[in-house]
Amino acid sequence: MEHHLSFSCDYMEGAHPRILQRLIETNLVQTPGYGLDSYCASAKEKIRSVCQAPDADIFFLTGGTQTNATVIDAILKSYQGVIAAETGHISVHEAGAIELGGHKVLTLPHQNGKISASQIRTLLETYENDANHDHMVMPGMVYLSHPTEYGTLYSKKELTEISSLCREYQIPLYVDGARLAYALACPQNDLTLADLAALCDVFYIGGTKCGALFGEAIVVPKPDFIPHFFTIIKQHGALFAKGRLLGIQFDTLFTDHLYETIGNSAIQAADQIRQALIQNGYQLRFGSPTNQIFCVMENAVMEQLAGQVEFGFWEAYDDFHTIIRFATSWATIPEQVEMLCRLLAAQHA
Amino acid sequence: MEHHLSFSCDYMEGAHPRILQRLIETNLVQTPGYGLDSYCASAKEKIRSVCQAPDADIFFLTGGTQTNATVIDAILKSYQGVIAAETGHISVHEAGAIELGGHKVLTLPHQNGKISASQIRTLLETYENDANHDHMVMPGMVYLSHPTEYGTLYSKKELTEISSLCREYQIPLYVDGARLAYALACPQNDLTLADLAALCDVFYIGGTKCGALFGEAIVVPKPDFIPHFFTIIKQHGALFAKGRLLGIQFDTLFTDHLYETIGNSAIQAADQIRQALIQNGYQLRFGSPTNQIFCVMENAVMEQLAGQVEFGFWEAYDDFHTIIRFATSWATIPEQVEMLCRLLAAQHA
Amino acid sequence: MEHHLSFSCDYMEGAHPRILQRLIETNLVQTPGYGLDSYCASAKEKIRSVCQAPDADIFFLTGGTQTNATVIDAILKSYQGVIAAETGHISVHEAGAIELGGHKVLTLPHQNGKISASQIRTLLETYENDANHDHMVMPGMVYLSHPTEYGTLYSKKELTEISSLCREYQIPLYVDGARLAYALACPQNDLTLADLAALCDVFYIGGTKCGALFGEAIVVPKPDFIPHFFTIIKQHGALFAKGRLLGIQFDTLFTDHLYETIGNSAIQAADQIRQALIQNGYQLRFGSPTNQIFCVMENAVMEQLAGQVEFGFWEAYDDFHTIIRFATSWATIPEQVEMLCRLLAAQHA
Amino acid sequence: MEHHLSFSCDYMEGAHPRILQRLIETNLVQTPGYGLDSYCASAKEKIRSVCQAPDADIFFLTGGTQTNATVIDAILKSYQGVIAAETGHISVHEAGAIELGGHKVLTLPHQNGKISASQIRTLLETYENDANHDHMVMPGMVYLSHPTEYGTLYSKKELTEISSLCREYQIPLYVDGARLAYALACPQNDLTLADLAALCDVFYIGGTKCGALFGEAIVVPKPDFIPHFFTIIKQHGALFAKGRLLGIQFDTLFTDHLYETIGNSAIQAADQIRQALIQNGYQLRFGSPTNQIFCVMENAVMEQLAGQVEFGFWEAYDDFHTIIRFATSWATIPEQVEMLCRLLAAQHA
Repeated sequence: MEHHLSFSCDYMEGAHPRILQRLIETNLVQTPGYGLDSYCASAKEKIRSVCQAPDADIFFLTGGTQTNATVIDAILKSYQGVIAAETGHISVHEAGAIELGGHKVLTLPHQNGKISASQIRTLLETYENDANHDHMVMPGMVYLSHPTEYGTLYSKKELTEISSLCREYQIPLYVDGARLAYALACPQNDLTLADLAALCDVFYIGGTKCGALFGEAIVVPKPDFIPHFFTIIKQHGALFAKGRLLGIQFDTLFTDHLYETIGNSAIQAADQIRQALIQNGYQLRFGSPTNQIFCVMENAVMEQLAGQVEFGFWEAYDDFHTIIRFATSWATIPEQVEMLCRLLAAQHA
Repeated sequence: MEHHLSFSCDYMEGAHPRILQRLIETNLVQTPGYGLDSYCASAKEKIRSVCQAPDADIFFLTGGTQTNATVIDAILKSYQGVIAAETGHISVHEAGAIELGGHKVLTLPHQNGKISASQIRTLLETYENDANHDHMVMPGMVYLSHPTEYGTLYSKKELTEISSLCREYQIPLYVDGARLAYALACPQNDLTLADLAALCDVFYIGGTKCGALFGEAIVVPKPDFIPHFFTIIKQHGALFAKGRLLGIQFDTLFTDHLYETIGNSAIQAADQIRQALIQNGYQLRFGSPTNQIFCVMENAVMEQLAGQVEFGFWEAYDDFHTIIRFATSWATIPEQVEMLCRLLAAQHA
Repeated sequence: MEHHLSFSCDYMEGAHPRILQRLIETNLVQTPGYGLDSYCASAKEKIRSVCQAPDADIFFLTGGTQTNATVIDAILKSYQGVIAAETGHISVHEAGAIELGGHKVLTLPHQNGKISASQIRTLLETYENDANHDHMVMPGMVYLSHPTEYGTLYSKKELTEISSLCREYQIPLYVDGARLAYALACPQNDLTLADLAALCDVFYIGGTKCGALFGEAIVVPKPDFIPHFFTIIKQHGALFAKGRLLGIQFDTLFTDHLYETIGNSAIQAADQIRQALIQNGYQLRFGSPTNQIFCVMENAVMEQLAGQVEFGFWEAYDDFHTIIRFATSWATIPEQVEMLCRLLAAQHA
Repeated sequence: MEHHLSFSCDYMEGAHPRILQRLIETNLVQTPGYGLDSYCASAKEKIRSVCQAPDADIFFLTGGTQTNATVIDAILKSYQGVIAAETGHISVHEAGAIELGGHKVLTLPHQNGKISASQIRTLLETYENDANHDHMVMPGMVYLSHPTEYGTLYSKKELTEISSLCREYQIPLYVDGARLAYALACPQNDLTLADLAALCDVFYIGGTKCGALFGEAIVVPKPDFIPHFFTIIKQHGALFAKGRLLGIQFDTLFTDHLYETIGNSAIQAADQIRQALIQNGYQLRFGSPTNQIFCVMENAVMEQLAGQVEFGFWEAYDDFHTIIRFATSWATIPEQVEMLCRLLAAQHA
């Protein structure tokens, strides 16, 4: 099943070596469970520091869908829904986890995976102006992903506009940072962790796709913004018994700026692949500057390529073409990139 | 926060060295996500083999509450509840995870953490005979834990009786094996993994408390007993992206009988502690033969002891005594046991 | 199926004639839907007045289980449960409606259907003192019924104690008044509607069993205690399109003290039946002073009686006796009571 | 608040006089509760007969949102969603009742309120062909309304195509007949109750908007298609204590073809209004042939008209025009229609 050359996703390997090393070193140290250990405490302090949010509540969970479902269910009132792009992970690829929690995803059309403050404003105003809105789902929060599912980035200006709007309407803003390291490593990105902490009510720093074995760090800049969140996490089956494993991983990721730099090689690799695609006449899609590369490929070419390298089939472009995705990661090595570039050139020739 | 001597629970350390070694060796191997990798496939084959259930469906999740909540919600119809001991983990210590899924826990009084076939039969008959039962929660499955929360074990005879009753009433039987390795290592235990597969509709083999870094293996002996369980797991936020980590761990646990023997030292340590308690005049409770040791302790003695060793405060016995718990694990070392035994003797003297 | 003589429950007939008359008179008047009509407005004013709660929010729903499920789900946080007697309607006879909303019913042993402030205090203190309470369901409100399922009544002193405790712990108190008219008509009752409004955070005034065709009036003395309750009601499928029907009924019930007196004849009838039972040597149970009469009956006698009059089979008393229930209502007529008394005397002879 | 001339909706009055008469006549008859009475039995037989579905299960509930939420939650597996037009009542105007039950509404673009077999087929095929569909919400049933929210009708041919597709995919088909009487009375309609029973797995016959005081009759042509539906109804707070009230109403509606003819005058009135609109130069919208009339109106005209007659504001058409709705009902009288036609002519002149 495993392919010799694969760009199918960014969670195909284990962990960054420094993380593995820390897990080995600490393996037999005894700690209390449920995140009440000193590794978690240390990781939280480091995250608070880099986020410039000294009072932030931090929680560590094991996966992205779990994190989204738990955060959203914790924030929304029972009668509220969450505003998201129609392409948002919670809209499409979480098997109804948000609805299982009783909430509607209120979708907006996307522009390369993004939604805008003005779209959200229109939705909120339309709701408010509808004479029947007491019979409708109330918009209760905004969900964004950064980078988006299409690899694109919100600018600081765009996120600030959305944040201001949310505060005007007193609606929490939540950012899914499953691939946040690849934003931070991207030259086009102008949003820091401190910016996210200043602009969002809740966001999560993705570990699973960004160098950890697994794990996501939820940041709640304003303390106690979600009362009894520990119990809510437990109730959602999302409280990890050996929380120390998450603490050790995030403590390592936030030592010596590892998290902020771990995506660098992935971005360079992605840029190299984008260059190769353009040079060989392929059409890029969605304008992603991060570690996900989308391009249009003729179906016959695609099928031949698929025999040599693993990648993602995104969606049909037309009857004869498909949009495919290559994903690089912190673990991608130059040899793999070069081999892919050669394959792309050969296909085209 | 970390204590120099601690018997407070059985998940205070990382993983068994062989597991860690496998994680290191495989760290940079690329695999697909979500458990579709060859490590998971291999682990599943080994579990099917030891369970003598060649067609069993196997699923790997990351924690016990998550596993219980997902399995129970998957098995029950919306209008059904789950029968459990009032002391069952799902009844008390899962923060309402079962109710979050919409289901009532139908509790029965326990005998040292266990419930009996005759109790369950009475509950089922009472329900059936109640003229108003269409207005009541229908009992839809039985939940047991083996070992129980009080460290006790079901005998093969007892579990067979419960299993027969469940089949008579066509009600699934589910066994929570969070600490199953400590049952398998216990001389008093006469239930093998193959017995569990033969007698249960679903059970889980606990990893988190039994030598894994984390993870539980759900065994469904009859294939497709839970249709679309993969999607149900995803919807519950319980689908682990890097499923290979779970596959690697369970593949190791089921190589060279590691899982069936990993609890041996914990049982020996527990027996040694039990002997020390008896010799020093303490009263044991609940008759646990496994890695959990319960005893009654005078409050003044307990407080003094608490300054020297970490343990669990279970429940008040009377105004002057408390029931406390010591837990050993696969990672407990002889020096720790000897130190505890010395402390117990010293307290008493 | 219909019996010629029946004391099986208190909702066997339609509506009090005055209510029917008002429905006839208003039948073709056009009103807006969803309770936004002038009948509802008038009924609400009358209820506010008799409750001495001039700012109270009032909502009309169609049935008791619906009301309980909607109110409890609206009040509780997702991680909280509701404290109730083990015999409470929500504990036993609502088919898991509370759990469907995601909440555990935290049951307490009952005394003739009642629970006490001291029991509730112990539960709250036990929860608070449990070192693991963050892993447990948090008690979030108290549910009582008045009269209880066993026909008994809370005294003003008892309810005041429970209310004080709830305020001390900042836990809402909710009273299910499905049969409230039978309390108000009972000489032993010392709780007025104004007392309920002063002591409870939410209560409901039962219509279905108390002279209405159907309907229950939820009283929330402190306005906006449940924000967006209209939408919550809609989301629970409990918003009645022709709300005017509920308004008309409750407006009639609260005109000329109908609600406060409609139970008088039922209480007199019940007292007469209780006298007949005692005189004929039957043992009364639970000490109900309201319209429900419980007694112990030898099974052979019971079976013979069941051929002549319909009543409720409550629970087995022992192998040879059963506890049965007779219920009177506003519609019970003297001839029926006399016939029942004759039957009881004849059985006994 | 009540207007002297109102066409704002079709549930502004009480009940058809024959129904009221039956409620008066039966008011003091004693019956068992919960629909186990002889009136319900009789009504069910009459509905089975007219539906030519002699074994159908029939259930009576009190309102439309309640019915939709209960039926949909009963039919779907936890991981499934319901396919509906984006304008479907369940998509927009039920305050998230479907999501409260844990299910996603999978919306399709509408054509005048309708969706087609080919749209549904595309959705099902897209789902099946998506390599990631195990991570997505599975389409589990189809929801239609007949008439639709826009007053339009499915033809027998269209519904047969959808029904065949649903059977091909083994996906239940459910039709919301809140306004079914207005379809049955409409000359353009070629779908009988027997057709609905033959083509649907579940549908409901609306009472609230069609002459009853309140109530909806769920028809399940294939018996036991929804096991334990009685308990599911109870759990959803939708089991009406005095079920006889619903039985009496539907028994009357299905006596002497009342239900099939009760909409006649409403359709004639609507046709008359449509004629007046056309004659006065207004643009009709959506092509509704039933009791709902939609037209485009200049905002200034609309505001003047709103001072004289009550109607519904549907949606903005452009910056200067609004789509408004007039609804007639069984209770609309010729004088009201004439007055409205005069107003329309006067506005225009």
